[in-house]
Amino acid sequence: MQLHWIRFLEGGKEQFGTLEGERVRVWHGDLFEYPQRGDRTLALAEVRLLTPVRPTKVIALWNNFKALGEKLGLAVPAEPLYLVKTPNSYLEPGGTIRHPGGSAKVVFEGELGIVIGKTCKQVAERDALAHVLGYTCANDVTVADILNRDASFAQWVRAKGFDTFCPFGPAVATGLDPEKLRVRTLLDGQVRQDYPVSDMRFSVAQLVSLISQDMSLLPGDIILCGTSIGVGSMKPGSTVEVEIDGIGRLTNRFN
Amino acid sequence: MQLHWIRFLEGGKEQFGTLEGERVRVWHGDLFEYPQRGDRTLALAEVRLLTPVRPTKVIALWNNFKALGEKLGLAVPAEPLYLVKTPNSYLEPGGTIRHPGGSAKVVFEGELGIVIGKTCKQVAERDALAHVLGYTCANDVTVADILNRDASFAQWVRAKGFDTFCPFGPAVATGLDPEKLRVRTLLDGQVRQDYPVSDMRFSVAQLVSLISQDMSLLPGDIILCGTSIGVGSMKPGSTVEVEIDGIGRLTNRFN
Repeated sequence: MQLHWIRFLEGGKEQFGTLEGERVRVWHGDLFEYPQRGDRTLALAEVRLLTPVRPTKVIALWNNFKALGEKLGLAVPAEPLYLVKTPNSYLEPGGTIRHPGGSAKVVFEGELGIVIGKTCKQVAERDALAHVLGYTCANDVTVADILNRDASFAQWVRAKGFDTFCPFGPAVATGLDPEKLRVRTLLDGQVRQDYPVSDMRFSVAQLVSLISQDMSLLPGDIILCGTSIGVGSMKPGSTVEVEIDGIGRLTNRFN
Repeated sequence: MQLHWIRFLEGGKEQFGTLEGERVRVWHGDLFEYPQRGDRTLALAEVRLLTPVRPTKVIALWNNFKALGEKLGLAVPAEPLYLVKTPNSYLEPGGTIRHPGGSAKVVFEGELGIVIGKTCKQVAERDALAHVLGYTCANDVTVADILNRDASFAQWVRAKGFDTFCPFGPAVATGLDPEKLRVRTLLDGQVRQDYPVSDMRFSVAQLVSLISQDMSLLPGDIILCGTSIGVGSMKPGSTVEVEIDGIGRLTNRFN
């Protein structure tokens, strides 16, 4: 069954549920343990969306797409290479990505997010997909200027960890085959990225399995799969949309 | 007033309180907002310590001590350089640091931890200390082999983010002048590190202020100040103690 899980505010109260066209089905209990389908639905237009889950960590891959790695002349990585985006960077669908000030060059990266459903600790590759709840859209926002300005220490965590620099959502979609998905990123309505997830160096199952050898992954944690060609900078006033058929469209303004 | 805040389990229930010699004073409410001193005390020996706070993020400085930077011939950084230790790495006082398996070389780094008490968002240096709850001891454990084995991407987050690789505690001590503290690290009872916090390139107030320009810091978040000379590797069966007068001693076994 394909569900689209969301979280939202209804009159100041946090709720979770599923999308049913233009309406939201309210569920009860815990999304990850015995979620209970309720009788009530609400108009989607009347609720305020939150991030669909609350991760304890968001792991973000670097150099995981062949097309971008080849274009940039990067070596083929022997293992997944990643950093972490801090919780202060999480941003809900529709939220405003805030410019950090000054003349900083801020870039978008449309990405697929793997949302963990069950605790993963040293999970075998063949068991990995059974620990995934579903998939979401994400924008891995980065201050490009900061990354390499210190010659001795690449500032990945800082450059990608500013407040509001990790929008994700709108939903976590279940029942999808990630190998068949395409990630499209639009800047002010113009397509800038349009790439297939099947071009990943490490598959979803490999990422979940390999990362879980070192770090336990908890329900709601997200692995951002990395990005491909078409990354670019945003100007204040821009709107960025990350769209994946079967999941939905994540829209955020930059200002 | 100097308090030593701890968290602990009493009969399976999470509590927080303050140390009073060999006894624990139980407090109620929220540590960060209107904590209420209770009437009850318990024997310290009868409770199980937890990490003294639950950070949304632990930021860890690199190259922040002059003595170590000079010894390693590192350039003087123009700004704080840092990574993040993920929540799966948090470990309580007395907990066992787990060897990741294989022949990995695992090193200890005794450090001072700054514990945030009030939300910091672009805080000025002169106001920074008013946002600090207190200080704790930490061991910034690292798999040395992983750090630089990929020539194109330094794996800081991964090498320092294994489960159990961030022990901290035993308490958060208030009312201290950090400039007067010394960090001592003992491996199997032998002193390996003994360095003054006053040797930091960036002071506590500078770290809190500068980092908060980019990332909001929340109550319970921790900034690990970096380490100085004397870092070394641990063998399975080793005991590591990080001791700071005025705070206490953090003891963990490695296995």
